[in-house]
This record gives sequence, C-alpha cells and structure tokens, in this order.
Amino acid sequence: MGNTFGQVFRVTTFGESHGPVVGAVIDGCPARLELCESDIQPQLDRRRPGQSDLTTPRGEADRVQLVSGVEKGVTLGSPLTVLVANRDTKPEDYGEMVAAPRPSHADYSYKMKYGVLASSGGGRASARETVGRVAAGAIAEKLLRVRYGVEIVAWVESVQDLCVSEPDVDKLTRAAVDRTPVRCPDAEVAQKMADRIREAKAGGNSLGGVVACVCRHVPAGWGEPVFDKLSARLAAAMMSIPATRGFEIGLGFRSTRMSGSDHNDRFVRKGDRLGTATNRSGGIQGGLSNGEPIVFRVAFKPPATIGLLQETTDWNGKPLILAAKGRHDPCVVPRAVAVVESMAALVLADAALLAVAAG
Amino acid sequence: MGNTFGQVFRVTTFGESHGPVVGAVIDGCPARLELCESDIQPQLDRRRPGQSDLTTPRGEADRVQLVSGVEKGVTLGSPLTVLVANRDTKPEDYGEMVAAPRPSHADYSYKMKYGVLASSGGGRASARETVGRVAAGAIAEKLLRVRYGVEIVAWVESVQDLCVSEPDVDKLTRAAVDRTPVRCPDAEVAQKMADRIREAKAGGNSLGGVVACVCRHVPAGWGEPVFDKLSARLAAAMMSIPATRGFEIGLGFRSTRMSGSDHNDRFVRKGDRLGTATNRSGGIQGGLSNGEPIVFRVAFKPPATIGLLQETTDWNGKPLILAAKGRHDPCVVPRAVAVVESMAALVLADAALLAVAAG
Amino acid sequence: MGNTFGQVFRVTTFGESHGPVVGAVIDGCPARLELCESDIQPQLDRRRPGQSDLTTPRGEADRVQLVSGVEKGVTLGSPLTVLVANRDTKPEDYGEMVAAPRPSHADYSYKMKYGVLASSGGGRASARETVGRVAAGAIAEKLLRVRYGVEIVAWVESVQDLCVSEPDVDKLTRAAVDRTPVRCPDAEVAQKMADRIREAKAGGNSLGGVVACVCRHVPAGWGEPVFDKLSARLAAAMMSIPATRGFEIGLGFRSTRMSGSDHNDRFVRKGDRLGTATNRSGGIQGGLSNGEPIVFRVAFKPPATIGLLQETTDWNGKPLILAAKGRHDPCVVPRAVAVVESMAALVLADAALLAVAAG
Amino acid sequence: MGNTFGQVFRVTTFGESHGPVVGAVIDGCPARLELCESDIQPQLDRRRPGQSDLTTPRGEADRVQLVSGVEKGVTLGSPLTVLVANRDTKPEDYGEMVAAPRPSHADYSYKMKYGVLASSGGGRASARETVGRVAAGAIAEKLLRVRYGVEIVAWVESVQDLCVSEPDVDKLTRAAVDRTPVRCPDAEVAQKMADRIREAKAGGNSLGGVVACVCRHVPAGWGEPVFDKLSARLAAAMMSIPATRGFEIGLGFRSTRMSGSDHNDRFVRKGDRLGTATNRSGGIQGGLSNGEPIVFRVAFKPPATIGLLQETTDWNGKPLILAAKGRHDPCVVPRAVAVVESMAALVLADAALLAVAAG
Repeated sequence: MGNTFGQVFRVTTFGESHGPVVGAVIDGCPARLELCESDIQPQLDRRRPGQSDLTTPRGEADRVQLVSGVEKGVTLGSPLTVLVANRDTKPEDYGEMVAAPRPSHADYSYKMKYGVLASSGGGRASARETVGRVAAGAIAEKLLRVRYGVEIVAWVESVQDLCVSEPDVDKLTRAAVDRTPVRCPDAEVAQKMADRIREAKAGGNSLGGVVACVCRHVPAGWGEPVFDKLSARLAAAMMSIPATRGFEIGLGFRSTRMSGSDHNDRFVRKGDRLGTATNRSGGIQGGLSNGEPIVFRVAFKPPATIGLLQETTDWNGKPLILAAKGRHDPCVVPRAVAVVESMAALVLADAALLAVAAG
Repeated sequence: MGNTFGQVFRVTTFGESHGPVVGAVIDGCPARLELCESDIQPQLDRRRPGQSDLTTPRGEADRVQLVSGVEKGVTLGSPLTVLVANRDTKPEDYGEMVAAPRPSHADYSYKMKYGVLASSGGGRASARETVGRVAAGAIAEKLLRVRYGVEIVAWVESVQDLCVSEPDVDKLTRAAVDRTPVRCPDAEVAQKMADRIREAKAGGNSLGGVVACVCRHVPAGWGEPVFDKLSARLAAAMMSIPATRGFEIGLGFRSTRMSGSDHNDRFVRKGDRLGTATNRSGGIQGGLSNGEPIVFRVAFKPPATIGLLQETTDWNGKPLILAAKGRHDPCVVPRAVAVVESMAALVLADAALLAVAAG
Repeated sequence: MGNTFGQVFRVTTFGESHGPVVGAVIDGCPARLELCESDIQPQLDRRRPGQSDLTTPRGEADRVQLVSGVEKGVTLGSPLTVLVANRDTKPEDYGEMVAAPRPSHADYSYKMKYGVLASSGGGRASARETVGRVAAGAIAEKLLRVRYGVEIVAWVESVQDLCVSEPDVDKLTRAAVDRTPVRCPDAEVAQKMADRIREAKAGGNSLGGVVACVCRHVPAGWGEPVFDKLSARLAAAMMSIPATRGFEIGLGFRSTRMSGSDHNDRFVRKGDRLGTATNRSGGIQGGLSNGEPIVFRVAFKPPATIGLLQETTDWNGKPLILAAKGRHDPCVVPRAVAVVESMAALVLADAALLAVAAG
Repeated sequence: MGNTFGQVFRVTTFGESHGPVVGAVIDGCPARLELCESDIQPQLDRRRPGQSDLTTPRGEADRVQLVSGVEKGVTLGSPLTVLVANRDTKPEDYGEMVAAPRPSHADYSYKMKYGVLASSGGGRASARETVGRVAAGAIAEKLLRVRYGVEIVAWVESVQDLCVSEPDVDKLTRAAVDRTPVRCPDAEVAQKMADRIREAKAGGNSLGGVVACVCRHVPAGWGEPVFDKLSARLAAAMMSIPATRGFEIGLGFRSTRMSGSDHNDRFVRKGDRLGTATNRSGGIQGGLSNGEPIVFRVAFKPPATIGLLQETTDWNGKPLILAAKGRHDPCVVPRAVAVVESMAALVLADAALLAVAAG
C-alpha cells in the first residue's frame, strides 16, 4: 500500500527518521545489470542534509550499503536491499509535539489515523523517508541509462517569485545544475535564490519553490492508456514527495488559457521518426510517451517547521504559542531535485518493463 | 494495469468509443448497500454529450444497465457490472487518421505502443471511456454518502482567462453549479464563458479551462502516508482523465511563492474536534485527510480535435494539411465536472475501505 | 481481490448464476493477436451444462459475445470483454436455503461474510462463475499457442476409486480425451466411470474425482522464485475452482514416501537443450519451469447438492430434514476438464508476459 | 511479484543464503500492536538449522533485529523491518554447480530465467529465504492471537510411510508438538521417524514427509469468494515453500473417493452459533471460513541435495558423476513446521484485515 511503488519494478521503503536505519527493497530489477554502491551514492550525496548552508544542519553521511541482490557486481534478479544508517538523531527536539500538533505538519492527521505517534511526529512523513526513494531511483536510472539511454535532469525553476525561464531541455546536464548550491542553472538568479533562502533561514522562516524536470530519450509508446497514464503515474510519484502541492505536465495550467490551434503540437519529420515541431504536451499524448522530451513541474510548499513563534492550540484545542526546535530546511527545492529525478526514474523503469511485457 | 483503478474498491473500465458498448466492473463494494440504476443515471446525464449547445453533438442517451452484483435493490458483495450502449457511432469520421496522426491526439503514441489502431484512433483515449468511470464513481459516491456523509462538488473555475474566485466551499451544491450549462457557479462569468465557448465552436477552435472540486466531511486520517498519499492518489486519478495537464491541492503552485509563516494552517478548536483556522493545505497533511474540506484543481488543455486546418505530416513524415471531421467538444470542462467528481469518489471510497482495514 | 486473477494478463469475472449475464474482462492481452468468438466457443461448449447425460440438465447454449478490445479480428491491446447470457434460471429451485443453509454449500459462510444472500445461495460460489474463466482461458490459450506453441490438455484421472494410470503426456490430445463423455482417455475405465456417475445420479447422490493436466512446450525459466512460484500460482488457480480439495505437482504426495536418490531427476541432453531423464518434479524446479512437461492433479470433492434427504438444521440451529431441488452435476470432473485447462492457461499467460518483462 | 505476499498485510522477503543478511519488510500491520523481538525469536528458533541432530549442521543463531516500525514496544503503522545476519556461509561448498546443475535443484531453471547464478545456486530458492517468512509470520500470529484468539499449530504427520493419525485438532499445542525433535505429537512414531531420518543422513540420502496444520478460532466469513478463496490462498502460500509438492484442505484427495452423502458436513447448533457435526471440508466452504477449525496438509519431497553420487550431466549435457558438498537437511519436515505455521498466519492476517475492509 502506502510504502510500495511500482507494478513490475517495485520499491518498498522503510525506516523512521529517528530509528536506527532507513532503506528500501527494490524488487523486479532485471538480472545481469552491473551495479555497485557507487552507482547509488552520488544521488544520495545530492539529497543528503548538510551539503551546503542552504539546508538543515542535521549531519548525515548517508553511506549506502547494498546488502542483497548483487553478487560480483551484477544483479541476480532477486530483491535489492539498501540500508542507510541514521546517525544524527535528536528525538528530544521533537518534544513540543507531545504538547501540541505542529501547524501544517502531519502530527495531527497521523495521530488520527494511527492513534500513536513516532517520537519524530509523522515519522514516515519526514523527508528522511526519501533516502530509500533516492537509492532505489539511482538503480532505476542505471537500468534506464544502460538499456535505453534515458537521461533525467531536474532543476530549481523558482524560489518564491524568483524564477528562471526554461533552459534548453535537450542539453541541460546535472553538472550545469550543480554549479550552484541552490541547483538553479541560471547563476545570476541562483545567487538571488540563495540569498533569499539564507534570509529566510536567519529569520526563522521557510520558502516554497518549483522543481522542473526533463526526461530525455524515452522511447515512444511507454505508459498505459487509461488509469496508469504516464502523466498520471508521474503525478502520483511527484505528489507522493513530502511538501508537494502541485504537478504540471507540458504547459500545465498555462495550457488552460490557450486555444487548440495555439496548443496543438504539429508533426514534423525528425530523422527516421516522427516528432513534433513544438512540445507543449511535454512528451506525453494520451498517457503514452511520444518520443519528445518529457517535461514536468512540481510545486513545493514552504516547509511547515519554522523557528518563528506560531499561535495554535494544544491537542485539546487550548490556545498556545508554539516554538519549534527540530532542525529543518528553510527551502526544500535544492535537495528535492534529486528526489524528483529519482521518482521519475522509478516511474519510467516500471513503464519500461511493462512496455516489454505488453510487446 | 491501465484499465483498473483502486486497491480495495476497484474499478475496471472497458469498451471502445466506436464499439457496441462501454462499461465498468466495480469490485470490492461492500454488501448491503442500497443501489439501483437511478443512483447512477444522474451523473451519466451530467457527463453525456449533447446535453447543451456547448458540447459535442454526438447523440447518446447513455442509459445505464446494472447487470450484476445487485439483487432486490441491494448489493451482494459481488462485482457490480454496468453497461452503456454506444448508439451514435460514426467511425467514418475518423478516416483522416488513416492518412495522418492527428496533432496532439493519441493516434501516434498508441500506434507506437500497440502497432494497431482502433477505427476511432486512440480508442481508449477517447473521452467516451469516462462513461465507465462516472458510473463507477456514482456507486462510490453512494457508499461515501450513506456511510460517512461525504459530499463532493466540482465546478468550472475558469475557461481560458475567464476565472471565478473560490466560492464558499462549505456550502456549494451541485444544484448551484448546474444553474448554468457551463457549470460555473457565478452566473455572470458563466455567461461570458458560454459565449467564449460558442465563439470557439463557431470558429472551429477549442479552449482550455480549470475544474475545481471540494470533498466535504471526509473524516481525518484517511489516506496512506508514503506513496499512496491521498493527494498522490487524487493527482493520479485526475491526471488519468483525458486532456488533463495539471493538478493542485490546496493553494497549489501559489504556495510556492509564500513563506511558511504565511502558509501554515494554525489549529483551532471546532466543536469537539481540532480544525484549522485556514485551509491552505486543502484538507490533507502528510498525505492524510485532516478533517477540513479537501480542495483541488485540475487543468484541462484545449481539445486537440479542431475544425481549423492544421499543417502537419502524414505517418511517413510527409507534410500535409489536416482537416478534422470527428465530432468533439469545443471545451471539455462543463462535462468534465462529473468526471472529476467521479474520480474523487473512487479515490475516497478506496481510502475509506483501507482506513477500515488499517483500524 | 477475489474477482481478479493475474498480474499482467489479468482477468476479472462477474455475474450471478441467476442474473442476466456472466462474463469477464481480460486486461493485458497484447495487441495484434488474431481473435474472434470462435476461438472461445469450443471451450465453453466443453464446459457447458447439458452436454451429456452425465451433467446437470440446466440448459444453457452459452454463446459468447466479445464486445470490446477487438476490431477487424485482431486485439487492440485494450480490455477484452466477454458476455454470456443466462437463459435457464430457476431461482425458485433455491427456496429451500431461505429456511436452511445447505450442508457443505457456501450458503452459511457467504451469509456470515456478506449478511445477504443471492437468490441462488452462494451466487458467486456457483460453478456458473467459471464461464468467465473458461472464456478468458481460451484467449490466454490462443496467445500461448500462437506465440510459444504451448499445449494444455487435461483429463479425468479418477472418479471415486476408478482410476487410470498416467497416459503418455507428450502425446495426449483433447480429441483423445473427448472420445468419451466422461473425458477419461481410457475407454474401458471411462465406461465404468460413466456407469458409476449415472448410478449416483439415479440415486440422488454425487461423486468426487481427480482431474490431471499436462502443459507442454512451456519454455524453461517461466515463473517467479519465491511467493509466486509457478507451482504456487497453479495451486492457487486450481484451488480457486469450486469444489476443489487438493493439488499436486509432479509426484505430489507420493514423493513424500520416497528418498532423494529415488526422486531426483537427473539431467540428460535432449537435442540442443538440457532435459531430465525422468519428470518426477512435474516440470517445475524452484518454482520455475524447467522445460519438461508441467504435470499436475486436482482433487474435486463430491458436489454438495444431492437429492438424498439430509439431516441438518435451519439457520437458527433447529434440526430439520433437507431435500434439495437445485439442478446439479452428479460429478463435476467431466466438465471441470475445461476449467482446469483454462486456469492453467491464465497462469501461464501471465507468467509468459512477466518473463518477457523480466528479460 | 515473486518476493511479496499479501494484499493488505504485505510481506516482502529479501536476502541471499550466502549474503550478509536475510530479512523481510512487513507493511500493513495495524498500529498500536504490542511487539518486540521476543515475539519473533521463538519461531525463528524452531526454524533454525542446527537445533537437533536431525537437521543440517549449518550453525546459525538467527537472532532477529527489528529495525523499523516499532517504538516503545508498539507498532507505529509503518513498515516493520526484520534483519537476520548470515554467519556460517560456506560458498565454497557450492563450487560443484559451476560445473553442473544439481539434479532436482533450482540451478538450471534459475540459470534459464536469470542468465546468472548466485554462488549458492538458486540463491533465493534456498530454505534460508524462509527466515523472513517466519519472522513476518510471527508478527502476523501476534496480531491474530491478540485480536481474534486465533491459534495455529502444525505437526509432522508423516516421514515416508511412517504416519500418525490425526490428533485432536481442537486441543493440540505447540508444546505437545515440540516434545520430540521430529515434531510429531505421537512419541512412538516420532522415535521411528527420527531413526529413519538419522539412517538417511548416515547414508547420504534424504526423505520426504507431510506436515499437517490446524488454525483454530478463525471467525466465519473470512476469505474471498472467487480467485482468492481462503483455500486458494493457503494453497499458494504452502506451495510457495521450498520443496513442497502438494496441498490438501480437509479430506483432500480422500474426498475424491467419497459420495456427497458421505462427505457433506451437516449443520448442528454449537452454543450460540451454527457449526458442523463433522469437518470434512476442513473449515472452509465456498472459499470462506465457516467457523470450524481449518485443517490442511502439505507434501514435502525429499531434499534434492544428497551425499550419494548421482549420474547426471554438466551444463553442456556431457555426462558426469556428481558428489554434492553443501550442508543440507536429510528431511525438512521438522523445521518446516514453523514455516507452515508462519505462512498460514500471513494468509489469515491478510484475510482478517480484508474482512474488516469489506464489512
């Protein structure tokens, strides 16, 4: 249910933010893929806390251990298990929620569902749960790259109103994205974003932003036609990331202000295949990839944990002033880039294997 | 896979737009629910073509037949099967795609996936597939209403740039929505929208728009915490509807331009439960319902089928000018209202049963 | 849940024994398979009631209608829907269970689960539910035959203590099985079985028996290694057929009385592949096919509906003497042959597509 | 797929026999169940190798670690992860399969499926994979016992032709079963079985046997009616255990030799509920529990690994004489008792949660 994603390439994540370990089991990865821990570590490093002064100071090396499914550097076809130890847990920081559910946090809804709370509040609602996703996504990416040459690159498009226009999605690289700690490929805007984030951090506040992503070289015809449209699967994948509030494929909400004659992508010949002259649809038609780059956007709200005092109530509805102590990111988008890429990889790896099955 | 939705309350739709029948099998509906065809027909009527001059002229009565799972007016716990006959099929209208894939249609991606095309092009990509969803959704709604008092109301928020501000989501009714054929609760804006749609129709063009939706009286604690967050399930459900391009929960993309102190929903006492003073989160925290109204938005692109001539290519990449003949809606949002409500009902009915199982 | 079988090649059956229709939706069948109703009808004819004096007199022509997923004689990749009308329903025959749950029938357990009963008692527990399985199985068989040359032949191995030894499983044909109405390939034993069945019928009693089955030309390596072993999937498939009580693969329970040195199948060269000199394992090792014929057995208990008077109680535990009126088979194995073959085909078609996905 | 079992109470096992760790993730276990490692260890101890001179000498303490999903002794509703380290691995013992696939082992079929072999041959086909099942099953059992009072007891019914008649299934306890190392509740027959096993071990041979099992206090109405009949789920669960060859519910194959009037279980009043005077059906009618004890049998073939020399071929079909070196059990049934109980618990826990969802 909630903790498993995918139909044939299937990932199950586990672990509490303040327990001994987080990780994932990846089932359905084909045998004979060359795979080792160093295929996984780089994306974990891009996701890990403490990588720059823009993120939470929680110090986690996040070294991955691959404890099943691989022998002599190749996958066996059996489940791959990745473990990442939690080192810098401070459950005492979360004492305030014993008294009161934190506003816009999962404390309250978790309590209503489970009747019990992990010491870190919505334990599995923590961003730390995404460690397992990123490790699994790195494996999915390896499969996609080796078999199909698929490339996935996400970037920070906006922090609040600071926004960059779309880069050349045919050419954008992760190296270009990583040139700034905020992971926005426009250095000038990136600087402004970083300043804004530091300012929020200093002021005990938090900021929202948008992560955009392109998936290149996805063959035409991946995806399912009705409920499991590739766009629907991507939407589910992205909206399952903590703090997400919106998803757009192609022109997204902008398309709603257009007419059909302005929006339609006419076909043109591209070498030995058909392509489209424009890509307003974002690479997906009728739920299936059409061979053009898949382009989508994900909205991240400002993190709920802020240092500023907040008027709210305790669990019984009695008013109080809350001061949060847990460490947190003032803005999640720089680290979310790796999570967005990873979830996209999980969606595409599953679609790739299903496309083979349907063939 | 593509044709089944839900984990415990499960719907499988079937049927081609130009075959004899479309329908759905609904499995997992609890026994002893009072149910008859008249529980289903009203929503089909709100979805059916030809209901006003704003829609496609395809004439379909869309009378539902309930052929299994019910006896003496109550459900048996066995699969419910609904059938709706196709009467007004004109496959000859679709001859043009024999020569060329229609721009921004599913013809091309379907051909790449399946190697064969239904005579209506992307047969299952047709809006007619949503008949099964709406019939199934009406059953889900009945269950939700009877057991939990859940109410679901969607409305047209915008057609192109013509936009209404959010109505009182605690009180909005379907009757209020249905007062205008465009299904926008603001009569004045609705009139402008209708004019704009008629204008597009006359000009052989099409328009995009946004459908918004509220789900009221959803108990706190429904949903799953990680991959199957209620927001993720709603996103998948909505993005599986033909012509959708974006999804927002709560403030959606607007939240990305805010700070945490402005966005957080502080708790207040509401009678004998905790509630929030504002509802910027749209009723979901950490993927679980929090007891506030669930509010979301769905972006619909302008329909791809337009009467205007389009420059494109044939299947071999040779340029040609395409003139479409298939009947179509100039703007799908008035009819999409019922589809959005239905998919929301399917998500919530599944969540309701899973919440019981987890209890 | 209960009404869907398979992971990639997926079948959902629906319909009550005494409703207007029974049928199935088959999702995941690859596109471009040549398919028409005459591919399905022959197996339905072998399953249908009234085909000989050994079966129930319920008269059903069981003509299949294929109403979705096929156009111009080929599959589209969309769901295939088959419908079979119920003609000869006599719900009045089932009035006795209003007063009392029939012994060894599903009336009681259905009532405990659902709190309501179809007029035919355990409506979906009826053998009539298998119509959908057989129609779906015929489609699966077509796929397996065309793509892989797989052949599936089941036969009646025993009726009570009347038992035939294993025929040459490399050569046995359906024609040979169908030479007698009891579907036992040994004419002499078949005659005794038929006599025994007629005798039971005349005496208002019923008989059990065993159906055996061989699946030939299944490539090595199909199946999954742990929970979805091919043997486990076959067991689940067979034990889901009404009235089944046991399942054996290869030597089954006989193997428990052997030693390893007597049971092991040593390898030998068979043309350009490895094979085994004996096939005590029944074609499956470690849950995966090994290229040898898959051979299994299914135990069917005597039908619960008998004409003889039975001491039992009413729904409140008050003793009474029950006289059943519903029409029934005195022994199900002659008709079960087609059901066993169909379920085997569903298991193998799913395994075939999953094997492709894993490749 | 292969490595996950269950629909709502879901278990995924992972780990190679000769890797660092084996384990399982259990998703869907309700929150607020009291749970600690000492709930799990006893069944692992009953399963572990080296517990008596009847088992393989591989020395594994099999200490369980519960690393997620529990805090302060209660479950959180999040995935439970159990890890068990492998200590006594001797991959060098498996060198012979580099040269030749071992007869009646999974080496050959695994190689055909995956194209690569773990150093232990069919790594996931190893009985060591069942460690994860037993740990998960112990958790399922705790849930079933606390919530419903369900009790599950398995025992060795036969080793080769040495067989005990059915004990009083209403009263049999695990303590009674554990009185002998062979786990047969009849001390005299148990002694003969133990002698037979030691004899086989001394002679480098192996033996088959039957494990029987009773599940008491299962409420009436659990299970699903069609494909996921409780009997079908149990059959799948049992036939997924390594070395199993057959499954029977109730009288199983014996019922095929009976008539309906002899087999039917007539109803009688049992206190405030209906029960049956006999239990030939083994507690399941129409796929649903009927409130009587669920009784089933599982056939285990003699282990394929034997010390005796075997004529077979190498991977290329060239004849050779094989001498196995891997440590193994001469007869698996004494240890299989815990595995059978665990798989039964997994089936019933899933059915319990689904029954709640359907209610």
